[in-house]
Amino acid sequence: MRSKRVSTRTVAIDFCPERNPFMPSSKGYAALNAQSPLAPFSFTRREPGPTDITVDILYCGVCHSDLHQSRNEWGFSSFPMVPGHEIVGRVTATGSSVTRFKPGQIAAVGVVIDSCRHCDPCKKGQENFCVEGMVEAYNTPDRFDGSITRGGYSSNYVVDERYAHTVPENLSLPGVAPLLCAGITTYSPLRHWGAGPGKKVGIVGLGGLGHMALKFAHSFGAHVVQFTTSFKKKEDALRLGADEVVLSTDADAMKAQSKSFDFILDTAAAPHSLDTYLALLKLDATMTLVGLPDKPPSISVFNLITRRASIAGSMIGGVTETQEMLDYCGQHNITSDVEVIPIQKVNEAFERMLRQDVKYRFVIDMSSLK
Amino acid sequence: MRSKRVSTRTVAIDFCPERNPFMPSSKGYAALNAQSPLAPFSFTRREPGPTDITVDILYCGVCHSDLHQSRNEWGFSSFPMVPGHEIVGRVTATGSSVTRFKPGQIAAVGVVIDSCRHCDPCKKGQENFCVEGMVEAYNTPDRFDGSITRGGYSSNYVVDERYAHTVPENLSLPGVAPLLCAGITTYSPLRHWGAGPGKKVGIVGLGGLGHMALKFAHSFGAHVVQFTTSFKKKEDALRLGADEVVLSTDADAMKAQSKSFDFILDTAAAPHSLDTYLALLKLDATMTLVGLPDKPPSISVFNLITRRASIAGSMIGGVTETQEMLDYCGQHNITSDVEVIPIQKVNEAFERMLRQDVKYRFVIDMSSLK
Repeated sequence: MRSKRVSTRTVAIDFCPERNPFMPSSKGYAALNAQSPLAPFSFTRREPGPTDITVDILYCGVCHSDLHQSRNEWGFSSFPMVPGHEIVGRVTATGSSVTRFKPGQIAAVGVVIDSCRHCDPCKKGQENFCVEGMVEAYNTPDRFDGSITRGGYSSNYVVDERYAHTVPENLSLPGVAPLLCAGITTYSPLRHWGAGPGKKVGIVGLGGLGHMALKFAHSFGAHVVQFTTSFKKKEDALRLGADEVVLSTDADAMKAQSKSFDFILDTAAAPHSLDTYLALLKLDATMTLVGLPDKPPSISVFNLITRRASIAGSMIGGVTETQEMLDYCGQHNITSDVEVIPIQKVNEAFERMLRQDVKYRFVIDMSSLK
Repeated sequence: MRSKRVSTRTVAIDFCPERNPFMPSSKGYAALNAQSPLAPFSFTRREPGPTDITVDILYCGVCHSDLHQSRNEWGFSSFPMVPGHEIVGRVTATGSSVTRFKPGQIAAVGVVIDSCRHCDPCKKGQENFCVEGMVEAYNTPDRFDGSITRGGYSSNYVVDERYAHTVPENLSLPGVAPLLCAGITTYSPLRHWGAGPGKKVGIVGLGGLGHMALKFAHSFGAHVVQFTTSFKKKEDALRLGADEVVLSTDADAMKAQSKSFDFILDTAAAPHSLDTYLALLKLDATMTLVGLPDKPPSISVFNLITRRASIAGSMIGGVTETQEMLDYCGQHNITSDVEVIPIQKVNEAFERMLRQDVKYRFVIDMSSLK
């Protein structure tokens, strides 16, 4: 029973699956500490409860935050760490109260795998902003048993069906996995700030997040301008949905875009000037950041004050909106552009990601674990 | 005729009122350069046109930006400079097409005294965000003749009636003058971001702007929290309308306010951490700056991302909203708390303003010029 297991840490039972025969055994890749590359690792999942589904993982996307946390670059990593929060798999078991899933069905799991369920944001379906703090797919204390959650670089997952998503049947599964983080992280702010027909929308950065932002903004009917530091990406940006591609290092080209944008979504991970883009906002427009820069950026208050402009932040999306996004992707045949890799290449993928050598998301084929 | 005078700079005709007998003579106080204190100065106003009113100035508020510009601290000052953009006076003459004013009537003039009149913001009554740039009461090229505008530290003013305001008869005129800048600068963002019943609103800083923000937010029905670095101001803040007063240097008191604000208006001129206040915003809340700090502040993106919060800027208000604000003040008997001084004490007032030794706005009694 769960109540007996509260405050038991999984770390104590990692190699004791015999302790509870109902706790699913899992194998995957983990960072044993902040310095080590990821390596094979076996562990157990919590005992599935009546509202849980158990999923055999088919694909898991590789997000830059997996690398950050594996190397403890944000300072709150718990080891051993199994990363991964862009999960697509096949349901193998369902609890007695589960209503939305059946064994054999495809399910997806993203960043948010639990929350308090009673605060205002949770009640509004904004579990990503849970006042008590969301439980993330990995590296967060599990509300059920206090263990540290372990992610999708592994063979299976146990999750309450409230936090799992159905997947439209027409979509290619490797391309679905990144929708669970890169997809919803860009879909949500584009929707919230009204990207659509008649709006001029800028996308800063063309990586895992940027390429999804481009696809969504184009699909929503906005006039989309892709900003890039490298014109090598121009053809790709046009293919992905950009109406214009602007080299952000070209001062004249940037000046020509001055005060013309309704919304700018900044997905760039590398250090860059925010003021360069704030100068492009028109009256009452917003620039939204979806990444955490290494250092707090400075901002030109002049650019805000003279146009009543805003700089905002956004973080993934709620459970309801994530399902809405997946359904939208099914209707409009939108998936991520991916490079599928076996899990044995995940450390190499981390290094290539650092060099921005990926178009546009690595996805691990979990059959390589077998 | 005006068309003949385009690009003629007033500076060339300052002491030649005989050049055009229809150009009103004015006397006031000016900064002759960035180093000199203000000193008596005579000049002429432009020839009033058919839509202009001529006003004998009764009172003019002393705004911190008067000091900044007199000392060229923003780098775009033109000398000799007559400051002043919080102007209340009596109409002495009206052009043939003027419809809203008659001689003898009280009129008010604020920061915006002209604009292009055809851009989207101008058409929407947001002349303060005119795409071609508003003409300010002083230190800006006049669209009529290219001369540099001269402000309200003087005996009279000439302005197109479109940019002048009527003043409710029940209000005390010295207390009205600061409404034209300190008033509208706080009224506008509090209205725009919906300060009102059911909303928790924070005010940072309790000076000329802050005390007006407090009065308005309280009058609008919000729960108002005044932040201050000095508890000496507590009684005054409560008198002015605060429901709570929080010492911003008290870490525990600040922590108790965490994630609870719908809106924070930052009026503080002195350097301070924005992150301290961003941490107090709840989901989807906004903190708005109405001052230009000396250095670009840095911001914690974490605080924005984890609550979809925004940091924004706002700058005075449009002509229509300024009239709305004055009418609201008449209905609710709101004026600024002022210390009335003769113009001979304006340099001393500048020094006292730098020491925050004013409750809460100096206003020059222009009869002292005679």
